[in-house]
This record gives sequence, structure tokens and C-alpha cells, in this order.
Amino acid sequence: MVDKPPVKIGLLGCGTVGGGVLRLLKQKESAWVARVGAPLEVTRVVVRDLDKGRVPECKPEWLTTDYEALFGADVELIVEVMGGEEPAKSLISRALSVGKSVVTANKLLIAKHGPELLNTAIRYGVDLAFEASVGGGIPVIRTLREALASDSVLTLHAILNGTSNYILTRMRDDRMSFEAALAEAQARGYAESDPTLDVDGHDAAQKLVVASLLAFGAQISENTVSVEGIRGIDQIDFAAAERFGYAIKHLAIGHELGGSVRLRAHPTFVPKHSVLASIDGVLNGVLITGEALGPCFLVGRGAGDMPTAVSVVSDILDLARSMREGEPGRQTRAIQFKERPLASLDELSTRYYLRFDVADRPGVLSFIAGALGDHGVSIEQMFQQGQAGDTENEVHVLLITHTCREAAVQKAILAIQAGPFLKSKPRLIRVEA
Amino acid sequence: MVDKPPVKIGLLGCGTVGGGVLRLLKQKESAWVARVGAPLEVTRVVVRDLDKGRVPECKPEWLTTDYEALFGADVELIVEVMGGEEPAKSLISRALSVGKSVVTANKLLIAKHGPELLNTAIRYGVDLAFEASVGGGIPVIRTLREALASDSVLTLHAILNGTSNYILTRMRDDRMSFEAALAEAQARGYAESDPTLDVDGHDAAQKLVVASLLAFGAQISENTVSVEGIRGIDQIDFAAAERFGYAIKHLAIGHELGGSVRLRAHPTFVPKHSVLASIDGVLNGVLITGEALGPCFLVGRGAGDMPTAVSVVSDILDLARSMREGEPGRQTRAIQFKERPLASLDELSTRYYLRFDVADRPGVLSFIAGALGDHGVSIEQMFQQGQAGDTENEVHVLLITHTCREAAVQKAILAIQAGPFLKSKPRLIRVEA
Repeated sequence: MVDKPPVKIGLLGCGTVGGGVLRLLKQKESAWVARVGAPLEVTRVVVRDLDKGRVPECKPEWLTTDYEALFGADVELIVEVMGGEEPAKSLISRALSVGKSVVTANKLLIAKHGPELLNTAIRYGVDLAFEASVGGGIPVIRTLREALASDSVLTLHAILNGTSNYILTRMRDDRMSFEAALAEAQARGYAESDPTLDVDGHDAAQKLVVASLLAFGAQISENTVSVEGIRGIDQIDFAAAERFGYAIKHLAIGHELGGSVRLRAHPTFVPKHSVLASIDGVLNGVLITGEALGPCFLVGRGAGDMPTAVSVVSDILDLARSMREGEPGRQTRAIQFKERPLASLDELSTRYYLRFDVADRPGVLSFIAGALGDHGVSIEQMFQQGQAGDTENEVHVLLITHTCREAAVQKAILAIQAGPFLKSKPRLIRVEA
Repeated sequence: MVDKPPVKIGLLGCGTVGGGVLRLLKQKESAWVARVGAPLEVTRVVVRDLDKGRVPECKPEWLTTDYEALFGADVELIVEVMGGEEPAKSLISRALSVGKSVVTANKLLIAKHGPELLNTAIRYGVDLAFEASVGGGIPVIRTLREALASDSVLTLHAILNGTSNYILTRMRDDRMSFEAALAEAQARGYAESDPTLDVDGHDAAQKLVVASLLAFGAQISENTVSVEGIRGIDQIDFAAAERFGYAIKHLAIGHELGGSVRLRAHPTFVPKHSVLASIDGVLNGVLITGEALGPCFLVGRGAGDMPTAVSVVSDILDLARSMREGEPGRQTRAIQFKERPLASLDELSTRYYLRFDVADRPGVLSFIAGALGDHGVSIEQMFQQGQAGDTENEVHVLLITHTCREAAVQKAILAIQAGPFLKSKPRLIRVEA
């Protein structure tokens, strides 16, 4: 085995994750031969700026700004850790079509172009691996692709955005405002300087789309997924959640419905003692329910250079091994997916937390209860609460419904909004039992 | 790919897990070709009793009581789900040495003879896979072997015996006695009729030995692992744990110490809000800490026919695929292990919960504190408690030490036992922060 030639690796990008990959590759150099059947050898590192500082494991002679360096004979396997849509997409597409396998950590790219790129990889008999694109160091993709190959995934419930989870945790534990918790997450380097992708739910939705390729064999366009972020949730909602026995988590949720799949990402009430409720701070957690397996829960660091690098390097080892065994494309051929219809959220049947900030006037409660009842929405628990600092005539009507249709509850809310007493937009948060 | 001949499978045993395997193999029949590159075909099922009822997926013409049926040309891959040491060991050993790959769910066998059998498999270029032997449906082995191939495992903390965990959960939540909780676990079919392996910690220790093959590359003899079970723990200990801020869990713990490894299985105080504390009932949980990855936590059903069958069938798919790709032995070759020294528990440095049931006499507390101090053991928290139903002159001295050496605390306990006032054997439970 040891006589096989080294697997020549080109890195596309060399920021924090790329640096972590080079460190890991160097650290256990001697272990790779036994596993892969050949040494791993970095030959090229393509960067935008030659003058930027790099980790000591990055040899200066590898560095170049010329993308063409990736397409020569001295690169067999490309590791894309530059991020973003372009030029990553064009470069990966070209690499696959000239017979080079690719490892990527790029969730945006796989969410938007995964099926197209996977088909390219399959057509040219090479691999496209992307473990690091979902859940950082947690082996989500591998578990779905391999361990659950023998079962059918029924549901996914996942905390996939560490920034949102950190903000919600700080708001709950330290009664911080959303703005203060976000500022802290940014100061600690958890959130992007433009945190829109994080806090508005799009990052989680992209990861859900990627996971659904494996979990449900579903090719879904990201912009058709129902997405809500965590903006607007405030201390009144946390107090209500606590009183009703729930935690508030931003979840990405997938359901296998047989004919169709339902994908959504939004703040969610989860029972206070559930496993998902126990995932705090920047941790990610993925709860997979298999038909035969039942629940299986994976928890770990969803971001950070070294956890992400662990996933990237485990993909590199897999692909390099398949190449030296004469089976390039092995991992990717095992993925089966097709375009699948997305079920409308209108058809969702669940329980709802509703909050109405209203003028404290006689008849308000009965109007709300009546409007809900008119639409077939019955109330499981309800209380009314004033709040220090509120104007004297404002109160909050907080309730949890029995199970009902999303379409019904939305119509009831419209009817309530037509009344004269609302002080602000009603809040709806879905409950997952 | 679809033109390749079927992979012919022989089952050794057909109890609940075997029945689950046949059901899963049948259910998704069409999916296997795309993944394996060939159909999967059961040809033989060897059982002890032909007259026993079987699942409808088990065709009568497969059944035989003749072990020789496994060694003919119509079996390429053997699935051992009969359990026990013999004849399983001899049959598997022979199968591997005549070039047949083997999937087993047999933790006892792998804990006792794993290294020998793996070496046989490697010598004959075939696979021996055993995902189902640890953690039932949780992909523990696969995660250690593949996802963490790029990292170094520093520690394992695992709840691996569902029966013990169920008993501890019922004792805590419903203040049941050990005996009542055990009887209930037996009535529900969780515990064996002889529950010794479960409640005395040996089942967890065996699984730890198997996991350590992958996690630490360590070939360790099971009977050298420090094992304690959950017998003897009572409501006074649960009340003390609660007051000190801990939960009591039976953990299997592995530490990479560089030169040596430390393996132990015993009841443990874990912080009340830790992830391990949240794993209740018959669930299993495995917390892996990687050097680069940090903590990664896997939770799921550690037993049961269908979860176990999911792991068995995922192994079958892996091995069948490698066989049809002309790479039999692929999975097993990736496992590297060697004999490694086991660190003595004497050298362990941690915190300890200690309980002394003593006569309520002046000077007792100072004697205990003095004996601990003489051995360099200092006390972090301590309280004294009487208990309804205790004889009037008995009290319980309950304390948590600061971090100290196991050898020191054990010597201190001997010194305290030499005193005249102990009513029963002191209790020691290790704390994991």
C-alpha cells in the first residue's frame, strides 16, 4: 500500500478554516498513509492576497493567486474553503469536469447549486464532499449518508445557527435585549459583521436544504423554504415560554410526508426538558428521527476553525482513499436525490404560541377568543400580563392553541388585526411537542 | 453497476435483532442496488430451533440448524446475531479465514476477542464490522472510525447500559428503591433475567473496551478495566447529589494519557445541567472529546431490535458495497490498534463524593475530616443528615472533596474505617466536572 504515489491536494482559500486544515494534515501526517494507502501532499494554495499572514504549516512555495494552478497535473483533489458563490462555483464546476474530486465547506454553494454540482461530479466519476457545510464538526452528512442508509428519515429538528442560539441563550439567561446579545455575539466573533444571514434564519435554511439532500433525497430550492428569524422576540416571549413550560429555539425542521417534504426554519417553542432545549450557546444540535432507528441526536460545535477543519479533513481522507483504491466518486455515487414537491406551510398542523399586545379595554379578550373560535382554533392555555414600563393601558394576551391548521390560525390573526385594539403586530411562534 | 451478481447473505441467529435485519433488508430492497451496486440476497438462516416462530420476511427454505450451511459457496457475507461467546467465536473465526466478511452485534465477543478476530479479517483480506455492538442504533463506531479519523480522541464519557440508566432515572424521579426499579426494568423487558452484566457494570465495560479499540487504538483486556455497578446506591445518595448540584449516572469513561489509556466504568456524579445528566431512561449517550473537534455528543436508543438492526444493516451495506467494488476488507483495514498499557486508577486525580453512615457521637466529624486531611484530601462541601427511619443514633456524613489522588482518598477511607463509629461500608462516587 505504501508504495502508492501521494495524493496531491490544492487548497482554494487559506483563511481560518484553511489554516486549520493545513495544521491537521501536518499533525498526523504518518497516520494518513495507513488509512489512505498513500501520503497526502499539499502542492498548491490559491489565495487572493500573497502578503497576508498564514499559519506556519503553509509553505510559501505553495502560495499563488493564480486559479489556473489548481487545474494542473500537480493537483488531484481540491479543497474549497474560500466561501461565497463566485468564483467558487465556476472553479469547482470546472475542477469536477476535468476529473478532480472536491471537498468544500461552502453551505451557500451546496444549498444553491448542490444538485447541479453533484450531477457534474457523478457524470465525471469524481467526488464532491461537503460534511463541513452543515453543523461544523458534527458528522451530520456522514450519519445521514452512511449510518442511516439502512433506514428512512422521518423528521429532522436542528439547531444549525450558533449565532442565533447564542443570542437566544443570552436573552433567556441574562435577560439581555436582542440588540445587546447580538452586539456581544459580534464582539466575540460568533456573528458576521452583517448578521442578516444568521439572525434572519437564512443560514439555517441553507443548511437545512443541504441536509435534506441526504435526509430526504430532496432537491429543494432554498428560496422556497419558509424562513423566519429571531428578530422581534423579546423578554415578554421568554417569560411566556417559561410560564408555559417551553424554551425558545431557532430550529430548522424537515418532515418526510411521503409525496412531498416540508422544510421550514423559524423560532420554535420546544418543551423545556427536551434534548433540543438543552443545547445552549454556540452549540449546534441535530435530532434525526428514523423510521426504525427512532430518535438519534448529534451535538457539537457548529462552527470554529478547528471543528470545521476536522470535517474537511475527514472528507479529504475519504476521497483520497477512494482515489487510491481506484474508486473515485464512491461517496457521491451513494447520494440519491430528485426534485421533490415542497408542502405548503398552510397545511401544517401544530400548536401555536400567540401574543397580542392590546389596549386594556373590556371585550378585548372575548374578541380574540371569539375570532380564534370562529376559525376553529381552540385555546389550550392563556394568560394576560401587564409589564413594567408598558403604557398603563397596554397588556399582553399570551396563549397556546390546541393543534390546528396554520391556514386557520393565520386567518384568525388577520381577523384580530382588523379589530381596533392592537398596539403592535401579533406574534406567532410554532410549538414542536 | 446493476449487472453485478447479488451479494449472498447468511444469518447466524434469527431472534429479535435478526428478524429486524430481515425486515429492513426487505423493506428497502430497491434502494440497495443503487448503493451497493448489486442486490442483497439472503440465502441461509442458521437457527437452533426450526419450530420457533419467525418474522414473515424469513422464508422457510432459508432455515437450517446446520452451521456448515454458512460455509458453502452460497454465502459470501455472514451476519452474526446469535450472541454469546461460543459457538459464535469459532464460527466467525472460521468464516473470516475462508474469505467471508462478517457483521456482528456481539459486544461480548468483540470485547474479548476483537483484536484477534480483526487480525484474522485483515490477514484474509475481509471485513469484520460491529457497529451494533456499542450503543445500539447510535453510529458510535462509524463516527470514531471515519468522522474522527482526522482528529485525536482525548476522552470518552458514555452512558452505555440502558438498564442501569433506566433504574437510576426511576430511583431519582420516583424515589423507587433499587430493587423495585430493577424489577420494573425486568418486567418491561429492558433488563436480562440475570441482570448482573447490566447492573454490575460489565456490559458498559465491554462496550467501553470495544469503543476504545477505535477511539484510542487500544487493545485492552476487559478484565483489567476498573468496574463498579450501581448496586448499593440509595435515596440518601440521590438527595446528596441533588443538594450538591449533580446527577448520578453510570458512565464508561476513557482517557487518552499519551503513553497509556485509563478505562473505567462506574457510577459518577455529573453536573446537573450537563448534557450527560439529561440522558434519561433507556437512552444511551456518548460524549467524545476530540483534540481539534472539541466535544461531540451522540444520543439515541442503545438497544431494541429495530435500532440495533439499523446498525447491522448499515454495516451490511458498507461491506457488500466494498465487496462488489473489489475492495473487501476496506473498513477493517482502516482500524489501527495495538496493546496499550492501562493506567492505574490509583493515579486518577478527580473530586469524590464520600458518604459515611456513622453513629451520632461527638468527635465523629472531626475524626473524618482529620483522617482526610492527614492524607492530603481537603473537603469542598460537607453536610450531615439524619434520615426518617434511621435508628436514632445514626447520621450520614456527606461530602465532596477537592481534586485529589484516588490512592490518597482510598487510604483515608481505610483510616476512617478503622475508627469505631461506622455503621456501614463507606460509599465513594467519583465526580466528573
